[in-house]
Amino acid sequence: MPSNTTACLILIGNEILSGRTIDKNLSMISLKLNGAGVQMREARVIPDIEAVIIETINSCRAQYDYVFTTGGIGPTHDDITAESVAKAFRVPLILHPEAERRLLAHYKPEDVNDARMKMALVPQGATLIDNPVSAAPGFVIENVFVLAGVPRIATAMMDFIAPSLKGGLPVISRALDVHCPEGEVAVGVGAMQLRYPDVEIGIYPKITEGMLRSTIVMRCVDIAQLAACANDMIAMIKDAGVFVTEMVD
Amino acid sequence: MPSNTTACLILIGNEILSGRTIDKNLSMISLKLNGAGVQMREARVIPDIEAVIIETINSCRAQYDYVFTTGGIGPTHDDITAESVAKAFRVPLILHPEAERRLLAHYKPEDVNDARMKMALVPQGATLIDNPVSAAPGFVIENVFVLAGVPRIATAMMDFIAPSLKGGLPVISRALDVHCPEGEVAVGVGAMQLRYPDVEIGIYPKITEGMLRSTIVMRCVDIAQLAACANDMIAMIKDAGVFVTEMVD
Repeated sequence: MPSNTTACLILIGNEILSGRTIDKNLSMISLKLNGAGVQMREARVIPDIEAVIIETINSCRAQYDYVFTTGGIGPTHDDITAESVAKAFRVPLILHPEAERRLLAHYKPEDVNDARMKMALVPQGATLIDNPVSAAPGFVIENVFVLAGVPRIATAMMDFIAPSLKGGLPVISRALDVHCPEGEVAVGVGAMQLRYPDVEIGIYPKITEGMLRSTIVMRCVDIAQLAACANDMIAMIKDAGVFVTEMVD
Repeated sequence: MPSNTTACLILIGNEILSGRTIDKNLSMISLKLNGAGVQMREARVIPDIEAVIIETINSCRAQYDYVFTTGGIGPTHDDITAESVAKAFRVPLILHPEAERRLLAHYKPEDVNDARMKMALVPQGATLIDNPVSAAPGFVIENVFVLAGVPRIATAMMDFIAPSLKGGLPVISRALDVHCPEGEVAVGVGAMQLRYPDVEIGIYPKITEGMLRSTIVMRCVDIAQLAACANDMIAMIKDAGVFVTEMVD
């Protein structure tokens, strides 16, 4: 199996549910977690509604080793993540002195206002997550990491916290570009999954140059098993008379 | 409020959780539901694990008017959605004569195999959803709509079922491009939300030409309230000395 250390991502934001914004953070965070030996097991997209945020955080933090959230930590009326997390943990929301210092250093005195200083409020007991882009920090409380929704900021925050994550072995993957529809090699790929139960094998249809083709992805923490599986897979596909190449990520 | 008719989307697929694939179906489905007067309230991304699929479907179908799923209805070993849905509804998985007919009509006789014919299996009592791209149908059982994961096919399936959805009034929206960081207008926007409680107002940071700017989105089923809110919002922003333009979707 890819990893026994598990994570869940909670995407907080009406703009994703309404269809206006296409999320890019799930993919970014999952890839960084793979490298840290942590497996993303679930993601939930929820609206900016306090009761929903509280219930989702409490349900997920009991279920997974790590929980990440994105969105809702800005200065506006619809940014209610910090307050909701505090309520989920039943602790007060407090002014964090270091967060306050960073915001005051970042803004010109005439640009400081109550809305912006709201971004220095964190749940009691939380530790800050650096934001090198726009100063306003994220935070971590127990196993819950609260990140910004803007992808550039969320990415910088993930780079900041990744070294502190305690995962298992990193997941490695290999992918094959298979020049036939998946139905043509389905039986052979299914047999390969039985032969290599510790390799997670996925096969996905795609349309390339107007033709139905497939991608086969193999993921495992053990490089030797992965190599054996990939070799057998390539041989099986070639034996079926189908063109196959290794994909480079 | 945007709409009282609710929906949830369950995205089934390890490839999205692993970070390899960035989902585009959530946005597409949400936008089509907006037009039908149905509000997407939640989305969940889950792995190709039968017990998780069953539990998630049963939890969501009790909670929302409509549930949509994408992914896992192809011919391969990791396509376990139809079987899992049947188990969630405690009905047998049966060979659907019309689905079988469509598949046999679509494939050349020499390309018919067991893996492909698996795509004619649906839960007892399900109705087919047309797939004009690659024949293999989706299906609906009670309030659960099971769609393909390939965006082009999922889109065609949504177009097929949209007329049958019974929603409320369609949600209309207006969006403003605001040439300042959101913290500068946060207080004014918050006041506007209090003045127009039936308009869902969101404000989102963005980085344009290296500058922090904001997008304000207003959503409502009532065009008059939406217009009044937008007019007041534009006046408030201009009064603050900030450049603002209406965005065209």
